[in-house]
Amino acid sequence: MARVVVDVMLKPEILDPQGRAVEGSLRRLGLTGVNDVRQGKQFVIDLDGVVEGARLELLETLAAELLSNPVIEDYKLQVIEDSV
Amino acid sequence: MARVVVDVMLKPEILDPQGRAVEGSLRRLGLTGVNDVRQGKQFVIDLDGVVEGARLELLETLAAELLSNPVIEDYKLQVIEDSV
Repeated sequence: MARVVVDVMLKPEILDPQGRAVEGSLRRLGLTGVNDVRQGKQFVIDLDGVVEGARLELLETLAAELLSNPVIEDYKLQVIEDSV
Repeated sequence: MARVVVDVMLKPEILDPQGRAVEGSLRRLGLTGVNDVRQGKQFVIDLDGVVEGARLELLETLAAELLSNPVIEDYKLQVIEDSV
């Protein structure tokens, strides 16, 4: 069994109004020294078997095109084997 | 400088319709052996200085009460020092 975690985050040059709102709230609630907050999505995918070869390639493609919007978002895919 | 990453995920016993929809799409697009998909949020917070003591406690409180909804969500807070 394998677990794949895909983090999807707006590209650094894209404005992030949600992150900006959270940043303001953190400051108002007393947190000091906040420079920047970005809000993204995380997908946790549990799979049977091993993730390698063509299956890993398909997962990379799906992360790049289904789970994220390549125009405005970056993604990071991590394979965690034997975690489930 | 420090970076704090807060992952917020629906509790395991809470239905996750977004994750379920993604699971269906992954299957239709040819990914085999998918057991479960959960979709969560990720906050990346960049801060000046060191995150410890009362400041870390405040961050934990804010992660538990502002960034997540403790009734239906779990959160995981990671402090990554010197990353920025």
